[in-house]
Amino acid sequence: MPHGGFSGRLTSPKLGLAVDMGHPFLNHAVDGFIKIGAVSACKVAAEESFECLHRGDVSKHKVEHALKKMCKEGAYWGTIAGVYVGVEYGIDKIRGHRDWKNAMLGGAVTGALVSAVNNNQRHKVVKNAITGGAIATAAELLTNLTS
Amino acid sequence: MPHGGFSGRLTSPKLGLAVDMGHPFLNHAVDGFIKIGAVSACKVAAEESFECLHRGDVSKHKVEHALKKMCKEGAYWGTIAGVYVGVEYGIDKIRGHRDWKNAMLGGAVTGALVSAVNNNQRHKVVKNAITGGAIATAAELLTNLTS
Repeated sequence: MPHGGFSGRLTSPKLGLAVDMGHPFLNHAVDGFIKIGAVSACKVAAEESFECLHRGDVSKHKVEHALKKMCKEGAYWGTIAGVYVGVEYGIDKIRGHRDWKNAMLGGAVTGALVSAVNNNQRHKVVKNAITGGAIATAAELLTNLTS
Repeated sequence: MPHGGFSGRLTSPKLGLAVDMGHPFLNHAVDGFIKIGAVSACKVAAEESFECLHRGDVSKHKVEHALKKMCKEGAYWGTIAGVYVGVEYGIDKIRGHRDWKNAMLGGAVTGALVSAVNNNQRHKVVKNAITGGAIATAAELLTNLTS
């Protein structure tokens, strides 16, 4: 008996884009920048869309504001991710093997660097280094746990 | 020619502790709780130690405060991690394979659950779900990048 039906498939965007900078260190950093920048921009887009839906008004001004925020946050988090990936790659090469300690050191160095560049006080640089190390270690452990 | 010397080795703590709850779902969640709780407690310990060194005073009161904060933050982040790992494990089983979309969904569900339990408004629950999804996706992508 022939029967009709509906068949559909929802394909999700593939997060794949290769940029060759000629050196694995740079390739890693750029890859981190692009991927985390994209995630951050998507987060802002989702937040701003929800905000518009929630308040019920969509104006040109709002859309422009959202686009600007997407670019700004995407670049900010992308840069932090690029620095982190680069630093972790370097630590990996120096130490010769990788585990959660690479992530901890990478996070700490990145936290210190980012807050030093942002002209924070010495006090805050250490705190951000501790926070960066903790976040990176937690992310590393969680991802290993769930894989 | 015999010569004397100093030989030492700094061993780092191994992050390994197995608790068998009788079901992989619970084992995963408990594992996440313990590991991320420990990371969070270490973060607070490092921060409070730095605070004491920075100000130059170590009193019994300060140490007690630090210990309480370690337990509180460790339990808080451990619980969030436990929920996340449990949710991701469930999504993994339902979808049948794992990629960054599991992390995104897991993070979003965890963000929504945690903020719903904390009696936030509906508005904040959605925002936290978006933030949770973005953080989990970023962590997953970063860890895959650096491995």
